[in-house]
Amino acid sequence: MIDYDKFLSRSAELMQESAIRRMGTVLAQKRDIISFAPGYPAPETFPWQEFQEIARELLAGADGSVLQYGPTRGFRPLLDVIAGIMGQRGIPTESDRLLVTTGSQQGLDLVARVLLDPGDVVLVELPTYTGAITAFRNVQAEMVGVRQEADGIDLADLDAVHARLTRAGRTVRVLYVVPNFQNPTGLLIGLEKRRLLLEWAARRNMLIVEDDPYRELFFEDSATELDVRPIKADDGDGRVVYLSSFSKTLAPGFRVAWIDAPPPLAAKMEIAKQAEDLLTGSLDQRIVYEACRRGILQRQLPLLRRHYQQKRDVMVDALRTAFGQDVSWPAPRGGFFLWAALPKQIDADRMITRAIEHGVIYVAGEAFFVTPPADNPGRSIVRLSFSAPSADRIREGVLRLAATVRAEVDAISLSTGPAPSGGAPSHPATP
Amino acid sequence: MIDYDKFLSRSAELMQESAIRRMGTVLAQKRDIISFAPGYPAPETFPWQEFQEIARELLAGADGSVLQYGPTRGFRPLLDVIAGIMGQRGIPTESDRLLVTTGSQQGLDLVARVLLDPGDVVLVELPTYTGAITAFRNVQAEMVGVRQEADGIDLADLDAVHARLTRAGRTVRVLYVVPNFQNPTGLLIGLEKRRLLLEWAARRNMLIVEDDPYRELFFEDSATELDVRPIKADDGDGRVVYLSSFSKTLAPGFRVAWIDAPPPLAAKMEIAKQAEDLLTGSLDQRIVYEACRRGILQRQLPLLRRHYQQKRDVMVDALRTAFGQDVSWPAPRGGFFLWAALPKQIDADRMITRAIEHGVIYVAGEAFFVTPPADNPGRSIVRLSFSAPSADRIREGVLRLAATVRAEVDAISLSTGPAPSGGAPSHPATP
Repeated sequence: MIDYDKFLSRSAELMQESAIRRMGTVLAQKRDIISFAPGYPAPETFPWQEFQEIARELLAGADGSVLQYGPTRGFRPLLDVIAGIMGQRGIPTESDRLLVTTGSQQGLDLVARVLLDPGDVVLVELPTYTGAITAFRNVQAEMVGVRQEADGIDLADLDAVHARLTRAGRTVRVLYVVPNFQNPTGLLIGLEKRRLLLEWAARRNMLIVEDDPYRELFFEDSATELDVRPIKADDGDGRVVYLSSFSKTLAPGFRVAWIDAPPPLAAKMEIAKQAEDLLTGSLDQRIVYEACRRGILQRQLPLLRRHYQQKRDVMVDALRTAFGQDVSWPAPRGGFFLWAALPKQIDADRMITRAIEHGVIYVAGEAFFVTPPADNPGRSIVRLSFSAPSADRIREGVLRLAATVRAEVDAISLSTGPAPSGGAPSHPATP
Repeated sequence: MIDYDKFLSRSAELMQESAIRRMGTVLAQKRDIISFAPGYPAPETFPWQEFQEIARELLAGADGSVLQYGPTRGFRPLLDVIAGIMGQRGIPTESDRLLVTTGSQQGLDLVARVLLDPGDVVLVELPTYTGAITAFRNVQAEMVGVRQEADGIDLADLDAVHARLTRAGRTVRVLYVVPNFQNPTGLLIGLEKRRLLLEWAARRNMLIVEDDPYRELFFEDSATELDVRPIKADDGDGRVVYLSSFSKTLAPGFRVAWIDAPPPLAAKMEIAKQAEDLLTGSLDQRIVYEACRRGILQRQLPLLRRHYQQKRDVMVDALRTAFGQDVSWPAPRGGFFLWAALPKQIDADRMITRAIEHGVIYVAGEAFFVTPPADNPGRSIVRLSFSAPSADRIREGVLRLAATVRAEVDAISLSTGPAPSGGAPSHPATP
C-alpha cells in the first residue's frame, strides 16, 4: 500500500475543508434539511426565460466562438460591460485593469498566488469570509484578525496589529475586507472609515483587497446606493484590488466574476489564471454578457433587493418569536446573512449534529475566525443565510433551530447543573 | 507611483505568459491570419442543435440547481457518467477517486499544488505541453526533460535522469506524460513501454501524471482503440493520476474535464479546488452530462476521428507539395498537431514576426522545451495545429508558411552568405 502522505506538498498537508462546503455535502446527502448554511441565492429569482432565450440564440451555431477557447482576460465585450458597471459604481477603469474570473473564489485565489508568499501575513476582519481563509491558507499565508465595530473594521486595532507584526519583522502588505454586508456579519464599513482606510493604506504602504459581491443587494428600508460606495472609488493611488461577481445578481452556476487591479498586478493575475483554467467558461461569459446588454441585470436588481429584504424580515420575525431575548444579531441592511449570537453556553460547532437531527443546518461562527478555536469568540454564534429558503421554510427552519437550541441547553444544564442565571450552581461547572 | 514589484510573491515574479496563449492574443488582434497555433477544435463539428435543445430543457426553470452552486467534486450524475467512460477505457473506478475540473488545465494546476513544493523536480517529456509547464512553474517546481523516441519517452534516459537527480539530493516524485498523440509531437507511447513505465514507477516510488485529452481522436487509418490504452488501465498500485477532458470531444467552452486519482490525493485536490473556484460551472456540467446520457458524445467520436484525419491529410499533402524534402515530421496517428522540423538555419521563434506579416501563425517549438533556449533543440521546429482551420485555409496557410520560410532563408543567407550546403562559405558566418 502506497503512503500518499509522502507525496503531498507542504501546502496540501495544511489544506482543510471549508466549513461551508462541508455543510453543502451534508445538504446533498439528506433530503428534508432546511439549510441556513451556504449563501445560495434564490433560484426562483433567476430570469430563467431570458436565459433560455439567450442560450437558444447563442447555440444556434452561427458563431463558433461561443463554445471555443478564448482570451484568458475574458470575452472582450463582457469586459466592456464590466467597465460600464464599474463606472456606475464610481470607479472609472481601463481594460488593462480588468480580468474575468471563474467566480470571485478564483479572484481570491489569484490575489493569494500573486501577492502572498508562504509566511506572509494577511490582515483580515474578525470574523471574515471562509472562502478567503481557504485561498490564503492554500498559499501558506498567515491570517491575523482585526476587530470590527458596528461600522466595520476597527482602525485603531488595525494599526496596532500592523505595528506589532511589523516590529516582529513580519511581512505585512495586504489587508482583506468585505466592506458591504460583510460575510458573515452583514456589517457595512462606514463611509468616513472607508476614506480613512485608504489614508492608512498609503501611510503603511499596504494594498487593500476589497471583496464586494453583495453591494447591489442593499435593503431599501435601511441602506442606499450611497452607503455601498466602494473603497476603490476613492483610490487615487492604485492601492485597491477590487473583486465583484455576477453570482449573486444573475446566477452562481455561471461562475462569472471579475477583478479590477492595478495593471502590473492584473497582468500577473492573468498569467496565474492561464495556469489555473486558461479561461472562464465561454458560453457562461456570453450569457452573462447578453443579460447585461439586454438590460436584464438592471431589471433584476430592484426585484432582488425586495426579495431578500422580505426574507430577512421573515427570519428576523421568526427569530424574535421563537427565541425572545435569547438571541441577538446586528440588523442586516443588505446581503444574505444574519449573524446570530446564541446563549453563551452553546458551542455551535458541537451542536451541529443535533441540528441535523432536527432537520436544520447553519455554519458555526467559529469557521470565520482565524484565531485558534480555544479563545474563539465565535463559539456560540451561527451564521444564518436567509437567501435561499422560501418564507415558509425560513419559519419552519427557525422553529427547528429553536428546538435544537432548547434541547442543547437542556443537555448542557443536565451535564453541568443549572446555569448561573438559574440560581447559584449546586456544584462547579465542568470547563 | 507605487512600485508593484515589491508586492509580488516569489511565484508571481517567476510567472511567464504561455507562448500558445500569446499567439491567441495575436489571433484576436488581426483578422486575416490563418492560425496553426492554438489547438482549437473545429466548431463546425460541435453538435449545436443538440446543445441548443439540451439548454432549452435545462433552462426551463423547473430545476433551480441548474444555475446554483453545487458540490466541489462535481454534479453527481456527471461523475457517474465519467465513471462509465473510465470503465470503457479499461479503468474501473470509484466515486472517491473522481473529481470534475474546470478544464484539464485546472487538473494540472491541482496536481501541481497538491504534489509539488518549490524546488521539487517534475520529470517531463522533451518536448512537453506548455500548459503543464506553466502550472508546474507557478508552484516553483523545476522541470527536467527526458528524451523521446519514436515510441515515446526513452526509458533508459528516464532512469538515468532520475538517478542523477536523486544522487544530487533532489526531490523527484512525479513524472508527467501525455501518452496519446502527445502535445506537441503527436507521438504515442508504445504499449509495452506503458507497462514498463509502471514497473519503473513502482521501482523508483514515483507517481505518474497521465494527461489524456486526445485519446478518442485516433485516426482509423493508422491507430485503433488498442493503441491508446491508458497507462492507468494497468495501474494495480495506484501510482497514476489520470486526467481527461470533454474539451476535444464536445466543446472546450464548457471547461469540463476530470481527474481520476487515488482517494487520498483526490480528497486533497477537492480542497484545493474549493479554494480555486468552488465548483465547475453548473450549467456546463449539466449540458455535458446530458450530451453523454443522450448518446451524443458516442455519436460524435467517429465523426471527429474522420474529420481530423481528413484535415491531417490536407496538411500533410500541402506541406509535401509546398516544401518538398525541406520539412519533416512524425506522422500524426491522431490528435490535433503536426510537429514540423524546418530547415536547420531557421529560428522559428524569431521568424514569427515575418509569419504574421505573411498572415499565418504557429507555435515555435522552443516553447515546449524545459531546457534553456541556448541549446534548445526545438529552435527550428514548429507545432502546426490542423484541427481548426478549414481544408482551404489549411492549404492557403501552408502556402503562406512556405513563403515565410523562403523569405526567412533568403534573409539569413543574405546576412550570413550562402549556407554550407550551397558550397564553401566565402566568409565566416556570424554566430
